Amino acid sequence: MLHVFPGDTIRTKTVDSAGLDEHQKPRVLPAGNPQTGPFYIEGAMPGDTLAVHFNKIQPNRDSATQYRDAIDPRALQARETSTRVSDWSHTWTLDRAKGIATPDQPSERLKNFSIKLEPMIGCVSVAPFWKQAISSSDLGPWGGNLDYNQIREGTTVYLPVYQAGALLTVGDGHALQGDGEITGQGLEVSMNVEFTVNVIQGEYLDQPWTEDATYIMVSGVDGSLTTAMQAATSGLAKWLTKRYGLNAAEVATVLANTVRYDIAEVVDPHVHVVAKVRKDSLQPISALK
Amino acid sequence: MLHVFPGDTIRTKTVDSAGLDEHQKPRVLPAGNPQTGPFYIEGAMPGDTLAVHFNKIQPNRDSATQYRDAIDPRALQARETSTRVSDWSHTWTLDRAKGIATPDQPSERLKNFSIKLEPMIGCVSVAPFWKQAISSSDLGPWGGNLDYNQIREGTTVYLPVYQAGALLTVGDGHALQGDGEITGQGLEVSMNVEFTVNVIQGEYLDQPWTEDATYIMVSGVDGSLTTAMQAATSGLAKWLTKRYGLNAAEVATVLANTVRYDIAEVVDPHVHVVAKVRKDSLQPISALK
Amino acid sequence: MLHVFPGDTIRTKTVDSAGLDEHQKPRVLPAGNPQTGPFYIEGAMPGDTLAVHFNKIQPNRDSATQYRDAIDPRALQARETSTRVSDWSHTWTLDRAKGIATPDQPSERLKNFSIKLEPMIGCVSVAPFWKQAISSSDLGPWGGNLDYNQIREGTTVYLPVYQAGALLTVGDGHALQGDGEITGQGLEVSMNVEFTVNVIQGEYLDQPWTEDATYIMVSGVDGSLTTAMQAATSGLAKWLTKRYGLNAAEVATVLANTVRYDIAEVVDPHVHVVAKVRKDSLQPISALK
Amino acid sequence: MLHVFPGDTIRTKTVDSAGLDEHQKPRVLPAGNPQTGPFYIEGAMPGDTLAVHFNKIQPNRDSATQYRDAIDPRALQARETSTRVSDWSHTWTLDRAKGIATPDQPSERLKNFSIKLEPMIGCVSVAPFWKQAISSSDLGPWGGNLDYNQIREGTTVYLPVYQAGALLTVGDGHALQGDGEITGQGLEVSMNVEFTVNVIQGEYLDQPWTEDATYIMVSGVDGSLTTAMQAATSGLAKWLTKRYGLNAAEVATVLANTVRYDIAEVVDPHVHVVAKVRKDSLQPISALK
Repeated sequence: MLHVFPGDTIRTKTVDSAGLDEHQKPRVLPAGNPQTGPFYIEGAMPGDTLAVHFNKIQPNRDSATQYRDAIDPRALQARETSTRVSDWSHTWTLDRAKGIATPDQPSERLKNFSIKLEPMIGCVSVAPFWKQAISSSDLGPWGGNLDYNQIREGTTVYLPVYQAGALLTVGDGHALQGDGEITGQGLEVSMNVEFTVNVIQGEYLDQPWTEDATYIMVSGVDGSLTTAMQAATSGLAKWLTKRYGLNAAEVATVLANTVRYDIAEVVDPHVHVVAKVRKDSLQPISALK
Repeated sequence: MLHVFPGDTIRTKTVDSAGLDEHQKPRVLPAGNPQTGPFYIEGAMPGDTLAVHFNKIQPNRDSATQYRDAIDPRALQARETSTRVSDWSHTWTLDRAKGIATPDQPSERLKNFSIKLEPMIGCVSVAPFWKQAISSSDLGPWGGNLDYNQIREGTTVYLPVYQAGALLTVGDGHALQGDGEITGQGLEVSMNVEFTVNVIQGEYLDQPWTEDATYIMVSGVDGSLTTAMQAATSGLAKWLTKRYGLNAAEVATVLANTVRYDIAEVVDPHVHVVAKVRKDSLQPISALK
Repeated sequence: MLHVFPGDTIRTKTVDSAGLDEHQKPRVLPAGNPQTGPFYIEGAMPGDTLAVHFNKIQPNRDSATQYRDAIDPRALQARETSTRVSDWSHTWTLDRAKGIATPDQPSERLKNFSIKLEPMIGCVSVAPFWKQAISSSDLGPWGGNLDYNQIREGTTVYLPVYQAGALLTVGDGHALQGDGEITGQGLEVSMNVEFTVNVIQGEYLDQPWTEDATYIMVSGVDGSLTTAMQAATSGLAKWLTKRYGLNAAEVATVLANTVRYDIAEVVDPHVHVVAKVRKDSLQPISALK
Repeated sequence: MLHVFPGDTIRTKTVDSAGLDEHQKPRVLPAGNPQTGPFYIEGAMPGDTLAVHFNKIQPNRDSATQYRDAIDPRALQARETSTRVSDWSHTWTLDRAKGIATPDQPSERLKNFSIKLEPMIGCVSVAPFWKQAISSSDLGPWGGNLDYNQIREGTTVYLPVYQAGALLTVGDGHALQGDGEITGQGLEVSMNVEFTVNVIQGEYLDQPWTEDATYIMVSGVDGSLTTAMQAATSGLAKWLTKRYGLNAAEVATVLANTVRYDIAEVVDPHVHVVAKVRKDSLQPISALK
């Protein structure tokens, strides 16, 4: 276990969700969304908040995979999704210079189809509460398999600390991913990752939240879209109260007119909805000291 | 009932959801999300698709209202939302020249708070199937109280036609609205509206869909977020199949990597989720003739 | 429209959900869950409660049908239900003397399979609020397609009155039906029905509730199982407060230890969950005068 | 860790969910639904099924507690449940001879209120898959905090075995509990428990199921009522196929007309719905050898 200090910047690699590295070699057995870490953050104590700022998230090979070829029946109605066709390859070529992904052996109709790369990290986690040991396929207040396509270069992820040292892990890089991860995978690829860790004392939101240049984004993770959306909205309300001292009526006024939602992921053991608000729309409100 | 022809452009007004016009005078009794119309579209027959293109959606007065002052308990967890504070006004001033809305008597913390206008139409409807008569607070395959903040100037709404003449109505303008309409209202205001109607024969998606310069957006309206998201995704899959002839595996490949979701509205009798895809990402695929 | 008086007992017939009568003759065109009525109840006014006590619910022919042969994909996970087999008949013989139903041309494995008759009425409705006209496939506070297998002989159904005369209709008899109506139908059959109507003034629960010799049962009708269960529980809580004057803590004490739930129906446009409590467990509590 | 053999009968005690034993003394620190065990079942291997038959479930003291005094906001609509009254005791006296529970300091209206004891075990668990360590507040395919009020004396619980020896634990006894455990607790009490364990080879349903003299009951545990009901129904369908060789159409015929659902629990980290069928209704079908 690598010990690092608040303020440290870590350069490391992640394998893909099948455990393959940048040379397509298996590095973990058995494979199953393996993570890099844990990193022990010196001084991080239960009740603190861990901040992980991603400086770089870069695919480190020229090929990605996308395993499933049908939309998950939990995401789509059954009658639309029963066909599962396997007559063409599931590997994609990543042109890292041009920043586009192209299916290797597309069908006739998709022969010109390509997509812009938007590399992201699917998993950022600390050790869960109550000394539980929970699979990296799952997600919760400790982060985990968040699969949120806005966790990119320049994003900071904030997680509650439950164990001394926080025990940070990262992994499950996607070259890009649609909302909801509705087929069960993004374009799965190994990554070069660089991130800076910090520890915030005396500030605590018992769920993950995220920040980039434009948005404050609070993650609601629960058993259904409804309860995940409620958790996200409640979390963003709590964040506004902590930062600006707003009461419930003021929160309602702000969010009614500014909130945006992302459906991050619907195919993992818990569902993930994000409530977000533009930072510039909050600028006229003076923050608490 | 006004009879209009395909290709006609209609200039009209809508009252706000309380039935007040541009002079704040009540025009409908009893008030309850009253609509303008119906318009009988000559030649529109069951099985056709009605296209309503909004050229103008412009507030026609300088004041909007937002009735509720707490987040709806169906949208937020109970413990965050029980406070309902009424110590300040619910009217907003709309500066139409500058394009911003400002609360009339804000609390101290929100004294500098203002928001950019993004005028939208909450209700676009045709007469429902089976000769039902359904309240304009509800929504369904016939459109209705969609409350989707992307139905703005430049947007085209497509609705299935169930009755001869379609019987189009519009109303429930909002000067702006956050995702989900989580307090139950946008900034409610009367509008000057201009729209052009067209009828498409032999094309039929049994749910509303919408198009602007950037996106194709398909509406899923159902009893819960889960089933509404399924309906939206299924509808977008069907749209791709109709337009491009894609099979299920091709649809999965396209949507897994490109789909975005909006949570349009969660406080009306049915929930509304939108699945959307950028038009430029579909451009490499050749449409069916 | 037949006018009847409070206290009157009505003997009538219902056709089955396909519109067939006791001679298997179609009586309604087009078929689609046709109802018997409406009955105008003299003196029933908006704000009153209509009580419909079923004295007799008896199949009036020897054959029932069950149309679908697979479990509805909304009720079951997709991978278990995709097979739809049609190689044997969907008619059942009702032995009314012995009180059992037997499939007419069963598969080898089900050749000895039979089920005890438990005749029920699927639809009991008044005219909805706001002068809406809503399909008899739907359900809501006005009753409608409740499909609750405990609405049998000896049961009283209570409905809010929204229009003068209430405009009662009944129909959609089932010789028997499992919980949830998970294949979309019970054993559909025409019925001889006898019921007594009464009007209760000054008592009003804005949702259907039901009573038999053993239970008080309150219906929650909403867009998902979660919200339907919440509506049923809230309704039963309100009922206890109206009848016994219990406060929230007393309601919680009683229901935590006594409530039972039935999943009445999950395949119609709204979902139906029932919260119920045994009358004998309430007996030690003195009712309000 | 106690090693036991298939066929062994174990007599043991469980503490209550707060960790108090039959003398109201704390036996576990910190308290949090502590369990008795684990028991290592000799010969139980991954892929087997563990059968736990409860011969005795008997409260071993005369006092039970019920902590919360309001219905959980996840179970009831917010506006009905915001009042939380604490002006009377949460302890109950258990008259074990007469078999009734009575609140110790009831309010005036509930002064004669008492309820019949129906002792049950809330938690029956094996070690989860993938060597996870998961809190005993949670539930899943491994059993756990099932909180199903039909797990009583005479009931057999079947669980999939994931680890050598199965690692059985039991706990969380309730003197009685309503459906759904809607206030978050039953009447919590320590128990004398006696159960017999057996291992079934070559039979595997990847979720808990239960059997008593009357019913076969399959547990669906998931993130929402909808998906839990789907999991329960799918599981019961699979059980019928394993035991009787029924195809999908035969399963649909049987379940459409016979299935009953129980809402076991809605307040723990996962929701629990049970699909059940009477054994006598299956008797005419010949089981596979």
